[in-house]
Amino acid sequence: MTRYQHLAALLMQRIEQGLYQSGERLPSVRTLSSEHGVSISTVQQAYHLLEEKQLIAPQARSGYFVSSRRAVPPVPAITRPVQRPVEITQWESVLELLNVREGENVIKLGSGIPDLQKPTLKPLWKIFSRMGNQQDMQMLDYDSLYGVLELREQVARLTIDSGCHLTPEEIVITTGCQEALSVAIRAICQPGDIVAVESPAFYGTMQTLRGFGIKAIEIPTDSCTGISLEALELAFDQWPVKAVLVVPVCNNPLGFTMPDSRKRALLALAQRFDAAIIEDDVYGELSYDYPRPITIKSQDDDGRVLLCSSFSKTLSPGLRVGWVAPGRYLDRVLHMKYIVTGSTAKQPQMAVAEFIRQGFYPVHLRRMRQQYQKNLQAFTLSLRRHFPCGICVTRPQGGYLVWIELPEALDTVRLNRKLKESHIQIAVGSLFSASGKYRNCLRLNYAQPFTDRTENALKILGAAVEDAMEKCVTSVEE
Amino acid sequence: MTRYQHLAALLMQRIEQGLYQSGERLPSVRTLSSEHGVSISTVQQAYHLLEEKQLIAPQARSGYFVSSRRAVPPVPAITRPVQRPVEITQWESVLELLNVREGENVIKLGSGIPDLQKPTLKPLWKIFSRMGNQQDMQMLDYDSLYGVLELREQVARLTIDSGCHLTPEEIVITTGCQEALSVAIRAICQPGDIVAVESPAFYGTMQTLRGFGIKAIEIPTDSCTGISLEALELAFDQWPVKAVLVVPVCNNPLGFTMPDSRKRALLALAQRFDAAIIEDDVYGELSYDYPRPITIKSQDDDGRVLLCSSFSKTLSPGLRVGWVAPGRYLDRVLHMKYIVTGSTAKQPQMAVAEFIRQGFYPVHLRRMRQQYQKNLQAFTLSLRRHFPCGICVTRPQGGYLVWIELPEALDTVRLNRKLKESHIQIAVGSLFSASGKYRNCLRLNYAQPFTDRTENALKILGAAVEDAMEKCVTSVEE
Repeated sequence: MTRYQHLAALLMQRIEQGLYQSGERLPSVRTLSSEHGVSISTVQQAYHLLEEKQLIAPQARSGYFVSSRRAVPPVPAITRPVQRPVEITQWESVLELLNVREGENVIKLGSGIPDLQKPTLKPLWKIFSRMGNQQDMQMLDYDSLYGVLELREQVARLTIDSGCHLTPEEIVITTGCQEALSVAIRAICQPGDIVAVESPAFYGTMQTLRGFGIKAIEIPTDSCTGISLEALELAFDQWPVKAVLVVPVCNNPLGFTMPDSRKRALLALAQRFDAAIIEDDVYGELSYDYPRPITIKSQDDDGRVLLCSSFSKTLSPGLRVGWVAPGRYLDRVLHMKYIVTGSTAKQPQMAVAEFIRQGFYPVHLRRMRQQYQKNLQAFTLSLRRHFPCGICVTRPQGGYLVWIELPEALDTVRLNRKLKESHIQIAVGSLFSASGKYRNCLRLNYAQPFTDRTENALKILGAAVEDAMEKCVTSVEE
Repeated sequence: MTRYQHLAALLMQRIEQGLYQSGERLPSVRTLSSEHGVSISTVQQAYHLLEEKQLIAPQARSGYFVSSRRAVPPVPAITRPVQRPVEITQWESVLELLNVREGENVIKLGSGIPDLQKPTLKPLWKIFSRMGNQQDMQMLDYDSLYGVLELREQVARLTIDSGCHLTPEEIVITTGCQEALSVAIRAICQPGDIVAVESPAFYGTMQTLRGFGIKAIEIPTDSCTGISLEALELAFDQWPVKAVLVVPVCNNPLGFTMPDSRKRALLALAQRFDAAIIEDDVYGELSYDYPRPITIKSQDDDGRVLLCSSFSKTLSPGLRVGWVAPGRYLDRVLHMKYIVTGSTAKQPQMAVAEFIRQGFYPVHLRRMRQQYQKNLQAFTLSLRRHFPCGICVTRPQGGYLVWIELPEALDTVRLNRKLKESHIQIAVGSLFSASGKYRNCLRLNYAQPFTDRTENALKILGAAVEDAMEKCVTSVEE
């Protein structure tokens, strides 16, 4: 990096952090030159670079100012869903989102797919190939209902990082986290029961509740600290809530990690009302904090937490290797697992166990965490460059999903239809609500390395949003 | 094979076929000698061999007689389950059966595991190894909700043999046949609904009904022609039966294949009462008849049949690759599939597709059909050798499962407990009933090549049965 690039990066960071606010005047060229001990022309080059990126703009005879729309957008306010149990719909929209996966030409900003191209994943291929050569008959035989023992041993070890002390006998391997959630929900609930969920909440979980005839009560959720414990308590007071379903670490879609004190308070609340907690930790290992935050499960002393996770976000979703640590619900989870799939494919389980055993997993995780954090910077910078002001954007603490709130009047379902012509896929906000909220929101995936193609997609997306906003204003004025 | 062995085999076959009945006098040594153009001593050697096998016994001055207990045992009579919907229990016994899989030293006569050691399966390993080398990124990515297209194309082609004309778009890949059955049941039924099943019926299906809160009405079933259509009609008349769940080809556990006319009549009945048919064809391709019998699905003209199958019995259960052709219930099946596992592991799907595409599948199938048929002969002969008379045994038309009915007073659950000491696993009959019937029955697996170990296990089993029978008689006499 040359001197002027270095200086530009530093200034960019300060703007990012809000040290130089939107519309604020930046230090003069002379001041910066003496402050950083660089030449006048170096400062000028740095300012030109930032000007090119539209982060700052010169004003005649007054120097450089932070471009107004480049300011850090605020985070979304706490959500306010309807405070009663509702039935879930939206399946058609989910299907629409899923079906896009088939098309190759589409830039998939709406999916939950991780980056699969990193060299740290390569040893997995070697393991696959070796397994073919070794012809281990175990691979073809029926699996134990619990799953492959070697994998459960490795999972038990991995969960130590999140504060857990699990034995392999407390873990059941599942066909992805989706089956983990599915069997956990069915182990606890009967049709007609009520489950409390964050709002917004992952559409896969919502559909599972729907499919089993379970009602959801959507709890207000803060985009920085998570589910509102106050609102949850009110819900417990009013309704016979059987379980709370949360994604407390690297939340999908809001990206927050609940502070540890709130995790403990949530557990205490569940204990007081004798409810189970279904904890989805599928993005937990991709936390940008190191060591990773603890799970609620790690604090669980009476077995009421069912911890669900998978290797779909960290290694590969095509493997379909997930797991659940169901605490006191082990027997019922085993029964559900048996009737749903019997067992999970053995080869992917054995491959993942070997990948971890040989030490490749932490190396890969570190690489992915770094990449996703780096991508986030480029992505949010680009968002600010191309999106109009008046939007709110989350500050993900891990994973690769960002949630954007547009002005109330905007409809992302309509926006989505328009974007299809440009081969851009987004996840519309209404998928994440049982009661049809968040039509003005969208979730974007920044897992892939930031390229010109991403930049271009965000430019088109931003322009479409701006266009929709203008139309809204016009129609209101009319 | 020497002359006397050849002659012994011929005589054995005749006894088998019932040409020489139990207790009947066999031709004299002299007669056979002239009839077959062999020496007196050859006939004597042949008779000695059969005597050793306890198939025949000499009587002083009268010649040789067919041993009474070696006669072909009759098939079980049509079953008579309770004719009302019942709730299913028995999970603990199923779990007990499944858990035995972990132990290595046990001879697993109770499982549904196929033979995995045949050379015709070998190309699968090569395919696995090649897939590792090729590093096809598709393998790691999320799958379509329907499953891998190449596999669906192959499955569509395979089903032509059973009389079907399916397109890949009408097929959904599942995580084994268990998921196929599970999503099919849930696509049609709500908790509290009633499903008609054969009696006895596969315990996996029964547990699925139980897990979803669905009631089963067990229909009398003939061990040669299948579910009683007359009883089924009565059930339709009396109860709001939503669906009929049958295994019409190579039934599990009874081994029959329904005559085509009865398959058609069953479909007509379902049409008349507007019920769905869930057709489990998981052993269908292992029919000893060639070409294989047609499915009910092949006759389905209004999409009410949900055909479920997998490669677990033909290739390997560890792969967890199954499929469902859900007819008019496609949309609901897709939803259920999504919430249950999201999708099926991709690598096993791609491997199976490649195995079929390269032409290895029919070769392997032929080999397995031949082996299982051969095993059946050795197995039933050994059964007759070691079991007391008074038992009924099914005549499987395919697959590798045989159902044995002991005298009414016998309890196989108790028998099973005793057999554990001898490291022999059987599937007790009560698993196959919702209402606790068939405690005097058991199901045995004859997939493995017949060895001294099998012979020895059947000897122990037969002795245990004989012992139990004697105790019964004693206790009655007391």
